[in-house]
Amino acid sequence: MLAAMIYFDHAASTVMFDEAHEILCTSFKSDFANPAAKHALGQKLSKRIDQARIDLCQIFSLKNFETIFTSSATESNNLVIKSFLDIGKVIYFKADHPSVTSVCKEMDGLGFAEDLLAAIDGETALVVLTLVNAQSGTILDIDKYSVEIKKINPKIKIHLDCAQAAGKIKFNFNQDFIDSIAIAAHKFGGPKGISALFYKKDLALAPLLMGGGHEHGLRSSTPSAPLIFSMLKAASLAQNLVDENFSRVQEIKTYIVEELQNAHKNISFPFEGKTTSVSPYILGVKFTGISSDIILRHLEMKNIFISTTTACSSKISGFNPILLGLGIEEKFHKNILRISFGLLSNIEEAKEFVQDFKEMLKEISFLIK
Amino acid sequence: MLAAMIYFDHAASTVMFDEAHEILCTSFKSDFANPAAKHALGQKLSKRIDQARIDLCQIFSLKNFETIFTSSATESNNLVIKSFLDIGKVIYFKADHPSVTSVCKEMDGLGFAEDLLAAIDGETALVVLTLVNAQSGTILDIDKYSVEIKKINPKIKIHLDCAQAAGKIKFNFNQDFIDSIAIAAHKFGGPKGISALFYKKDLALAPLLMGGGHEHGLRSSTPSAPLIFSMLKAASLAQNLVDENFSRVQEIKTYIVEELQNAHKNISFPFEGKTTSVSPYILGVKFTGISSDIILRHLEMKNIFISTTTACSSKISGFNPILLGLGIEEKFHKNILRISFGLLSNIEEAKEFVQDFKEMLKEISFLIK
Repeated sequence: MLAAMIYFDHAASTVMFDEAHEILCTSFKSDFANPAAKHALGQKLSKRIDQARIDLCQIFSLKNFETIFTSSATESNNLVIKSFLDIGKVIYFKADHPSVTSVCKEMDGLGFAEDLLAAIDGETALVVLTLVNAQSGTILDIDKYSVEIKKINPKIKIHLDCAQAAGKIKFNFNQDFIDSIAIAAHKFGGPKGISALFYKKDLALAPLLMGGGHEHGLRSSTPSAPLIFSMLKAASLAQNLVDENFSRVQEIKTYIVEELQNAHKNISFPFEGKTTSVSPYILGVKFTGISSDIILRHLEMKNIFISTTTACSSKISGFNPILLGLGIEEKFHKNILRISFGLLSNIEEAKEFVQDFKEMLKEISFLIK
Repeated sequence: MLAAMIYFDHAASTVMFDEAHEILCTSFKSDFANPAAKHALGQKLSKRIDQARIDLCQIFSLKNFETIFTSSATESNNLVIKSFLDIGKVIYFKADHPSVTSVCKEMDGLGFAEDLLAAIDGETALVVLTLVNAQSGTILDIDKYSVEIKKINPKIKIHLDCAQAAGKIKFNFNQDFIDSIAIAAHKFGGPKGISALFYKKDLALAPLLMGGGHEHGLRSSTPSAPLIFSMLKAASLAQNLVDENFSRVQEIKTYIVEELQNAHKNISFPFEGKTTSVSPYILGVKFTGISSDIILRHLEMKNIFISTTTACSSKISGFNPILLGLGIEEKFHKNILRISFGLLSNIEEAKEFVQDFKEMLKEISFLIK
């Protein structure tokens, strides 16, 4: 790794906590048995995995939830949504992650607005809500929606995609109305390849992966104990410092917003509205008059890494359904940058980033229309 | 780990190669970017992953196959089988792994015999063949079946479950007739949580996981580059020594068979027939007059770990469909042991195992009917 690198794409994937990495390496060496094996080595591992289910709920202050482990938040989201596709309609926001929107029958989706509630009808079986939007960082008022949804029909289930929230934003919502929650380890300092799905016991999940009947019959596959234990450690480290990190990252974001908004007249922050809360970990930037790809390349030359859209929509060029869902006109879809901070990001990085960004602006000013 | 431990449950899951473990640890630290990110860090990772697809095919001498990465052989098997469930019948052997049998509509399955071919009809879309049976070690004559299947109807696709074969048994079959192949890293010294699915370009796969469109659109989820690179290393190490390991493990197995068959009159080896080849890595033992669970416990007290059935069927008690499929009468299902060897198993372990096993026999002889 180059010393001077500034990585501000933590929302796509972040660095592992040293302690979570250590557990990963140790466990991949020593926990080689199959947790489904009948012998003591397997049974001990199986018990430790079961304890991890409980511990993870405690870390996120989740009560009355069961835990299963899957390979990704995509899998966790898919597992819940696919369980309901044959039961009724699945309602979601158009600006949700592709792992939500692309699996739903209602491919039109909905705008990021009040009309989600209007779309709910007698056929609605599941509503998917995203606590922190991956592109804009917008924090959804879960309670506001969940209360209204359950008022319309208490039988409707509510799934929360918390991939961008876990370990960064406290789960302050009323858990009574929430039926399942997906998180992804690699977004909060754990390893890639592991996710947890928390769910209420009465949620009728239909397994995607069938076989040995692991994970309470809901997800067959030999569990990867090392990935689970490492995720647990990362979750614990992230949650222990959740308030402290939040404040520090908020400071970083505020600093960058203040510096960049005065750096060029074409720069604005379309998601930093006053009516909605936004996660400090994600900063959406609109830079008109120049393609965001050009900015990305020029920053790269300075060893700075940010993104335009979410990594999972990186294959979509031009028109972007998420940005449209967020109220960004199509003509500006090529002018969006996403700067995202990590649990360990610090103000020094932010200062260097701002300095380098301004320097770049001078260099490419002739390209900006 | 206790020094004197003898672990002979490698078919359930095996220890990681040191070099594969090293790559894993290094990569989980340094390859933190999201391979789907547009910036150079992501793109470099993405290219390395694409190279791993090619390298893995070369390692297993696979020509004209594409590679995608999934989280487990269960997922790879499910992905192929579920793609065909709506197209036509899926035919398999009753003795196949639960990740094959439990996903098929034809829950009756078939016996491990010639009648697989008889079951194929005009509605058959897919036939699943298992190169090495996980319970018995029986090596299927793939060419014999695949030629006949394609003769009946060349449009029928053939999927190979090679979870117990990869890195242990050379893929000597005629690849022209095979449409897809599943392997699992943790069976050949790679990490748990990663698998490869090799498939011919014209195979119409329907993704199980939908979202960002990773893995050629066939498997959405942020790829876990470290797991992929580590699996690649393990595959290379296993394949480099495939013949050498095969001979050594064959010697171990032969030694144990000779020693155990004379150790007690109730011991026999039901799968070591003369008409079929059997993998040296798996030894099925029938020990009548005593429950296999009791033997497992007594061996455990001597720090020896073997299994009864496959780990993925460990939750099934009594009647076992795999054993039935293998021709074992139900009354003997509680009398089956599975001893399985690893890529690094050696004759010294085998000698100690035999000695301890005989000692145990003396200790528990009063329990044997």
